[in-house]
Parts: sequence; C-alpha cells; structure tokens
Amino acid sequence: MKLPKHGSNPQYVYSAMKMNKPDGVIDLSANINSFGPPNVLIDNWSQLLKEIVEYPDPYAQNLRRKISESVNVNVEKILVGNGGAELIHLIARMFAKKRILIVQPTFSEYENACRSFRCEIYHHQLTEPHWNIEIEKLKLSLSEMDALFLCNPTNPTGIVYSYETLKEIIEEAYKHKCTVIIDEAFYDFVMNYQSIVALLNEYENLIIIRSLTKMFSIPGIRLGYLMAANEIIQQLQSIQVHWSVNAIALTAGELLLEQEDFIRETQSHIKEEREALFSYFDSQHFLVSPSQTNFYLLRDPQIEDQFLLFSFLLEKGIVCRHTLNFQGLEGRWLRFAIKGKKEHTRLMEVMGEWRQTTPYYS
Amino acid sequence: MKLPKHGSNPQYVYSAMKMNKPDGVIDLSANINSFGPPNVLIDNWSQLLKEIVEYPDPYAQNLRRKISESVNVNVEKILVGNGGAELIHLIARMFAKKRILIVQPTFSEYENACRSFRCEIYHHQLTEPHWNIEIEKLKLSLSEMDALFLCNPTNPTGIVYSYETLKEIIEEAYKHKCTVIIDEAFYDFVMNYQSIVALLNEYENLIIIRSLTKMFSIPGIRLGYLMAANEIIQQLQSIQVHWSVNAIALTAGELLLEQEDFIRETQSHIKEEREALFSYFDSQHFLVSPSQTNFYLLRDPQIEDQFLLFSFLLEKGIVCRHTLNFQGLEGRWLRFAIKGKKEHTRLMEVMGEWRQTTPYYS
Repeated sequence: MKLPKHGSNPQYVYSAMKMNKPDGVIDLSANINSFGPPNVLIDNWSQLLKEIVEYPDPYAQNLRRKISESVNVNVEKILVGNGGAELIHLIARMFAKKRILIVQPTFSEYENACRSFRCEIYHHQLTEPHWNIEIEKLKLSLSEMDALFLCNPTNPTGIVYSYETLKEIIEEAYKHKCTVIIDEAFYDFVMNYQSIVALLNEYENLIIIRSLTKMFSIPGIRLGYLMAANEIIQQLQSIQVHWSVNAIALTAGELLLEQEDFIRETQSHIKEEREALFSYFDSQHFLVSPSQTNFYLLRDPQIEDQFLLFSFLLEKGIVCRHTLNFQGLEGRWLRFAIKGKKEHTRLMEVMGEWRQTTPYYS
Repeated sequence: MKLPKHGSNPQYVYSAMKMNKPDGVIDLSANINSFGPPNVLIDNWSQLLKEIVEYPDPYAQNLRRKISESVNVNVEKILVGNGGAELIHLIARMFAKKRILIVQPTFSEYENACRSFRCEIYHHQLTEPHWNIEIEKLKLSLSEMDALFLCNPTNPTGIVYSYETLKEIIEEAYKHKCTVIIDEAFYDFVMNYQSIVALLNEYENLIIIRSLTKMFSIPGIRLGYLMAANEIIQQLQSIQVHWSVNAIALTAGELLLEQEDFIRETQSHIKEEREALFSYFDSQHFLVSPSQTNFYLLRDPQIEDQFLLFSFLLEKGIVCRHTLNFQGLEGRWLRFAIKGKKEHTRLMEVMGEWRQTTPYYS
C-alpha cells in the first residue's frame, strides 16, 4: 500500500487503502478555508470566461501591481507562480546540487523538489511535543549551507515562530551567504501574525513564498507568489515556463486581494473552532500540537503509530492527513484541517466513538 | 527596443515599439481559432466554478482516459501538461546537457527550454521559399544527437511534412538511440492530416506533443498533452510539479475532446479563408509560405527586412508576429494567423494601402 504524498484528492487515499470511498466524505486532509471562495469570485465567475480566449500575461503585471499595493513591496520584487509548488520547484532549480537545510517536519515538497535537482539535503529536526527551534544549533549549521527552507506557520504542526527568531536566523544566514526561504502559505489564517516582509529591504538573502490557494479556497486554479530581491526574481523568472500561470488565476487573484474582511472573519472563525476542538480533544485525552493556524496535529497517546485511528476515521468517512512522509513524525501523529461546525460535530462524534472502543487509562 | 519573444499579449508589442495601442486591435500574432471556444464550454462554464475549490487531480485520470479513447493510445502513454510550454520544458530537463538537434525556423521555446537546461544545441536549417527537409543530411546528423525537435505542421511556416518523411526520420533516429519529439500543436487545423500516433507502438524513441489551446481557443487556461513510451511518461511525470495542471483545464479538456464537428468546421473555414487570402496576396505580389494550417508567413519581396511593413500594420491596428527570433527568418518574413472574414477584409484593405504606397515593379 502506498499512500498519496500529499493531502487532498481523497479518492487516492481510499484506493491505496483498498476501501470504497463512502458518500459525503469529510475531507480534512487539505488545509483549505471551509468558507469557500469569497462572493466576489462567485459573482464575477461569468466574467472570467472571457479570460480563457487570450494567452495569460506572462509577466502578470496587473496582479503584481495589486500584490505590491497590498503587501507594500516593490513590484520588481514579486514573482507570481502556478501555485506554491511551482515556486518551490523554481527555487530548488536555482539551488541545483547545492547544500540545502530543511527545518522539519514540514511540507514534503521542499525536499522532493530539491532532491529532483540533486541538492544535498540536511535537516534541522524539530521534536515533539513542542517542536521548538534550537536556535543556536540551527545558526551553527547555516555556515555550511546554501539555502534554508522554513515554513511559518509550520505545516504540519501549525506552530508560528516569532519575528525575532526568524530575523535572527536570516541575519546569521546573511553572514554566510545562505538564502532563507520562508514559506508563509498559511500566514493569513493566524490572528495578529507579524510577517517578515519588511526584512526584504534589509536582507537580499530572503525569499518569502505565499499562496492564495488556502485562504480563498481556490486550489483548483493554482495561484501563489513569492517576494525576494530583484536579482533573485529575475533569475527565477528566466527559468519559469512561459504562461505558466493561467489567466483565470491572474484575474481571480486581482479580485481576491481586496477581500480583507473575508480574511478577518476567517481568522476569528478558525480561532473559535480550534479552541472548541482543542478543548474537546483535551477532555478526551488526545494530544494536539500548539497550532495557531487552520490545521493541527493530533495523536492518541495510547497508541504509538496512529494508523488504526487513521483507518477508523476513513471508514467513518473522515479523511485526515497521514504523516508517514513527514520526517520526524512517521505516522505518530495525524494532521487535521480546521473546517466548519458541521464537520467538527461529526469529527467529535467519531473521535468519541473511537475513545469508547479505545478507553483512556490514566 | 526589445520585441516580445512570442506572439499574443499585443500590449507588449506596442509598448516595445513605443506606440499607443489603438482600440479594436486585430491580433493576428497568436494562432488561435477565431471561432472562439465551442459552445459546450460556454454552456458549462458555471458548472466549472465548483472545480476551483478542490485540488486538481495530479494524475489527470479522467482526462487521460478521454484522450486515450479519442486518440486510441494507451492511457499509460499519456501525460497532461500546463500547456505545451510546460511539456517542452519537462522534455528539455530530461535531456539536460545532452545534444539536441532542432529543425528550424521553428517555435523558439524548444531552444529556450533546452538552453536553460544547458543542452548543446544544433540546427537543421530549412531554407526559403520551400523550407524542404534535406532528409539525407538530417539523417546523417542523427547519429550524433540525443534528441531531435520537429514541429509538424511547422510553426511558423505552416508546412506539413509527410508521414513517410517523419517515419523515415524516426526510424533512423531509433537506430542511434536518438529521441524524436514531434510537436503537433496545430495538426488539427489541417485537413486530412496523417498523424504518426500509430508509430508510438513501434518506436520507443518517439514523443508527440499536442495542445488543446489553439483549436479550442483556450490559451488562458493552459492545456496540452504528450504521448510517448511508458518509461518516458514515468520519467517526465516524476519531475513534473505536483498539481501543475489546474482543475478548470482538466474538466474543460474532457468536454472539448468530444467536439469533432467543431474541428471539422474549423478545418473547412481555415482552408477557405487561407485560399481567399493567398489569392489576394498573389494578386498584390506578396509572397507566402505554402501553409496547410491556420497561419502562414508573408513577405513583400520588394523589401529585405519586413520591419517597415510590421510597423505600418501596427499603426493600422493589425498585430502580426515579427520573426526576428526565428533563426533563418530574422525579420525577412512576418507570420499571420488565419482568423475570420471581418479580420481578413480589414487585413486586405490595409495590405492594399501598403501596396499603394509601395508599388510593385516587376
């Protein structure tokens, strides 16, 4: 049995498990906003039809201008990509055969992409249950590295590392000509998140990746962007496939960047639901990661490998994300996206059933 | 002044020429079907909205099954891509640093992609006004090459090379372990085109690229596919960015593959319009390439470089494709897409004006 290497596309989980996919599956394996796309996208959908008949603007000028205004970064420091995945691959290609440090457990695509470009991969391992960065140890390794990948908030733990910590890392990396790639794919789900965007003006060794996929529930149309020094942007653009970002994504992106209320409402909703869930899980003696974003890790401390719980949930029509290919987790935790009340009522019901069949002995 | 390296996105041509883009520009620089997208896509557009909220199927199973039925090729021999451009880049990466032969003048992306992966590039030059392949010379070069790129019908001449010629090339290449990449991006505009698809079963050194962009007027959503031996498909898929083809493209592709009447009507239309245009151009002493597809090369034999004609057309609101970056043409010809009656009436009017100011002396 080979489980899919990413969340989403639950049909492949059921097929790998040789199980029939029940009707009305609740997919908690992909960290997508349960609000669905903002109304502005739905209301303008018919308008987007006219975008399909022209080649997309390969330089994404309008969208980059909007992003520039929205994040207060010069337009020359912005590159739009066909989802975060393309941007990660472009960076990996830029560092082909170089030495890469990855703070893990983390999104597996950093390592997949870097391996495919024959990088030498090293790891800074975060350990449960706090997953703290050992800052002095990490700083020591930087002198030997060409680039560092770090996801903030971290996928899959949901933990946010502070501005000060990140600045300290970037500063040290700068001394050693090591590029720091901070993936902020989920930053906008975090209340009062302090981004490091302003550091782009000080440090030319910084790349920040973002995605519009998760907040705006548009994983189907693929849209992300990155910010970095002009020279890095030029280098990445020169190796990017022409027209790689489709025209629907470009125009949708322009509409979505204005949705600030939607983002704030999402943040409140996520916080409220997370607190309710965590309080329930605590009462039922499940462990969770100290997440500040829209997903979290969970384990039943009574079993080492969580595969039985994973299968139990699948049978009940709940798909979470296995962690078999997250180094440092290897199946000892499961990742769940935070969705809406309906999904959580059902999740708590099923977790309650699990707890009944697997009682907790203190 | 640096003109754009591809057709389409006419705003960049005007901006490079430091000219204001007039209203109602006729864009003949991109070879897109003037019929626009088939009704099935317009009618189902609102349905496609639901595709945006899920990650696209990274293995494109449904679409590959449809393509398989439509072209009678095993599903394992098909890879779907984010437009032809992504597929070309994947192939270039597979042949990184190898020796590549390109039959030119041709689509510049083969060379761009191969150069970016540090291939050694060689050319088989076709020469005007017939652009015939010197088959014996080409066959001799194959023994030294790892791969050959050939576009059929050829962009930018519109010339179709015969099944027999292609088979002879593929056979010779096979003996020398040289892979032949035939780009059939415009094959479906050609009446009675004899494809080499059946040769996939005989020759494991054959890759055929196709695009849905041009026939179905969907350059904005990016969709292409390629066919090759299973091992090549696996190799290419292993380096393809996860979710690189968006969900709108996947579902639209399924709808479009059934549009056989639409394709036949397009073919008749293109043939009729091409013949009318060529007859007019002949009467006005312009030279054209012997195209069998939906674009052609044109030159005024009275001037060497066609830049003046190019600028004249731009001023009149007609955008054609310069050929400055087509090696072997270097601006001595201009490329025009075949569109509809309205565009052609205007084109002939403007070409007539040009001929009046630049009379032909036999």
